[in-house]
Amino acid sequence: MNVTEQSQLPTSNIIQPSLSVVAEDWFKYLVKVHPHHTDYAGIVWHGTYLTWMEEARIECLRSLGIEFADLVAAGCNLPVIEASLRYHQPMRMGMEAIVKTRIGDMEGVRIHCDYQIQSLNGEVLFLTGRITLVAVDLQNGKVMRRLPPNMKDALEKMR
Amino acid sequence: MNVTEQSQLPTSNIIQPSLSVVAEDWFKYLVKVHPHHTDYAGIVWHGTYLTWMEEARIECLRSLGIEFADLVAAGCNLPVIEASLRYHQPMRMGMEAIVKTRIGDMEGVRIHCDYQIQSLNGEVLFLTGRITLVAVDLQNGKVMRRLPPNMKDALEKMR
Amino acid sequence: MNVTEQSQLPTSNIIQPSLSVVAEDWFKYLVKVHPHHTDYAGIVWHGTYLTWMEEARIECLRSLGIEFADLVAAGCNLPVIEASLRYHQPMRMGMEAIVKTRIGDMEGVRIHCDYQIQSLNGEVLFLTGRITLVAVDLQNGKVMRRLPPNMKDALEKMR
Amino acid sequence: MNVTEQSQLPTSNIIQPSLSVVAEDWFKYLVKVHPHHTDYAGIVWHGTYLTWMEEARIECLRSLGIEFADLVAAGCNLPVIEASLRYHQPMRMGMEAIVKTRIGDMEGVRIHCDYQIQSLNGEVLFLTGRITLVAVDLQNGKVMRRLPPNMKDALEKMR
Repeated sequence: MNVTEQSQLPTSNIIQPSLSVVAEDWFKYLVKVHPHHTDYAGIVWHGTYLTWMEEARIECLRSLGIEFADLVAAGCNLPVIEASLRYHQPMRMGMEAIVKTRIGDMEGVRIHCDYQIQSLNGEVLFLTGRITLVAVDLQNGKVMRRLPPNMKDALEKMR
Repeated sequence: MNVTEQSQLPTSNIIQPSLSVVAEDWFKYLVKVHPHHTDYAGIVWHGTYLTWMEEARIECLRSLGIEFADLVAAGCNLPVIEASLRYHQPMRMGMEAIVKTRIGDMEGVRIHCDYQIQSLNGEVLFLTGRITLVAVDLQNGKVMRRLPPNMKDALEKMR
Repeated sequence: MNVTEQSQLPTSNIIQPSLSVVAEDWFKYLVKVHPHHTDYAGIVWHGTYLTWMEEARIECLRSLGIEFADLVAAGCNLPVIEASLRYHQPMRMGMEAIVKTRIGDMEGVRIHCDYQIQSLNGEVLFLTGRITLVAVDLQNGKVMRRLPPNMKDALEKMR
Repeated sequence: MNVTEQSQLPTSNIIQPSLSVVAEDWFKYLVKVHPHHTDYAGIVWHGTYLTWMEEARIECLRSLGIEFADLVAAGCNLPVIEASLRYHQPMRMGMEAIVKTRIGDMEGVRIHCDYQIQSLNGEVLFLTGRITLVAVDLQNGKVMRRLPPNMKDALEKMR
């Protein structure tokens, strides 16, 4: 099952060296490669990682006290407005990995989530990436200049 | 591109001979296997077919004058309540196929959609299936005992 | 079109509490609804369940001592040749469920896997289904008349 | 299709402005939003675009004389090693769009593919992105320093 692991993992060999300093800040989410994640080459299809990153992001928000389904029910959505991914090593069927996430770096209305996907022993880096979100009013589709208070508090806690 | 083809296709080699009698009733939708449809075995992943069947169903409804997005905007959803699929032959990357669909067989509130997925020349049968839908009120989730009039007319036209 | 009507499926009496009596026979796999599982109606898209059922099946095999990636590496694939699903209740974002699986009912070369997807407290039944597999030689695509010995032993253990 | 107007959008540091000059170089691929592409917010899920971009890329290669399935059969894969996407406007169910692709910008062993996804009339820009590929030997997973000749010729033709 998808569970989070609190074990400390080495963070060498990542694209943003500054991130490694604060390794203890990462939220960790375990994933495993199943057949539906793979493609004809026997490796994880490149789009599959976005599903894992989304799951990790939502579980990270939950760990901060934000239940995403509640946020949406309250009329606030968090669409992705930018995504950038670097694929370092392929993953193969049956392999497990840790999706490391850090949410909360703000830039105006933008919320950045940084990612590293690593082998369980931390020796192989599969992917690094950044996803940028904005809070949007589900009714009118407009960007919310101010985050819902519980969301704002949670993100500040994260930082 | 996904387009519908009106050309008559041979309908031999199907599992129920009786179906070939009414071949002209089938709506035909062209699909092609791309990498994201495949799995580690180099063939189309078994769940992929549901996406093609859904696309064919919606384009079939459109050919009957029902724009699915409008139906949903008007508060009516058509969730799948039953699906049954038989996988006869695998499809491989780069292959094309015709998704043949027939909507409209009614059974109480149930709307049945029958499917055959075949090679372009009709000689290979990849999949046969049936999808059953009900009309549901999007607001309260209740089954609609009566179909929206334009839907009802369209389905009768189909039959 | 009476293609794959699984009227004999042991799913007709699923809602009955009697099933809980044999709960110990089911392998249980926890899933949670994330955004990428949902569709415009705010519920789990009907094809998503096949991903969960596949994951549960593979973890069930692992619990029996069969590592699916090893089986494939040894040249044996287990493609789905039939699937039948009944959608009883929709699942919504943030909800969790137990995918209950039982593998091993054999019929010639066919291996049947039965499924029930239920709420954690067992009170809501979301889906019942059956997936049928055959063992296939990955090299030549032919059905294997005899299962690999470890697979055969494991399935007999399951029964 | 009016592409020059796109230089006014906040896309300047994703794709080269020079691209707008050569709009006639874009390969165009039509897509349509079906239910399985959407999420709970009624818009296209952010990962869906990668499937469309892949389809457009493969059809673009085909237009250059490269059949992707043949390339793979000949032992050459083209995995994605980088992806960057900007989501400008959401797409909703039933909408159609043009996926504009240009392949062939080379940087050492890297092959860049630039993308714009627009409304049919060119007035709405939904997404801009860049996907970077490398040619990899399917057998040993090593990067191929030299492209297969037909691939090299085709990409040069594109430029």
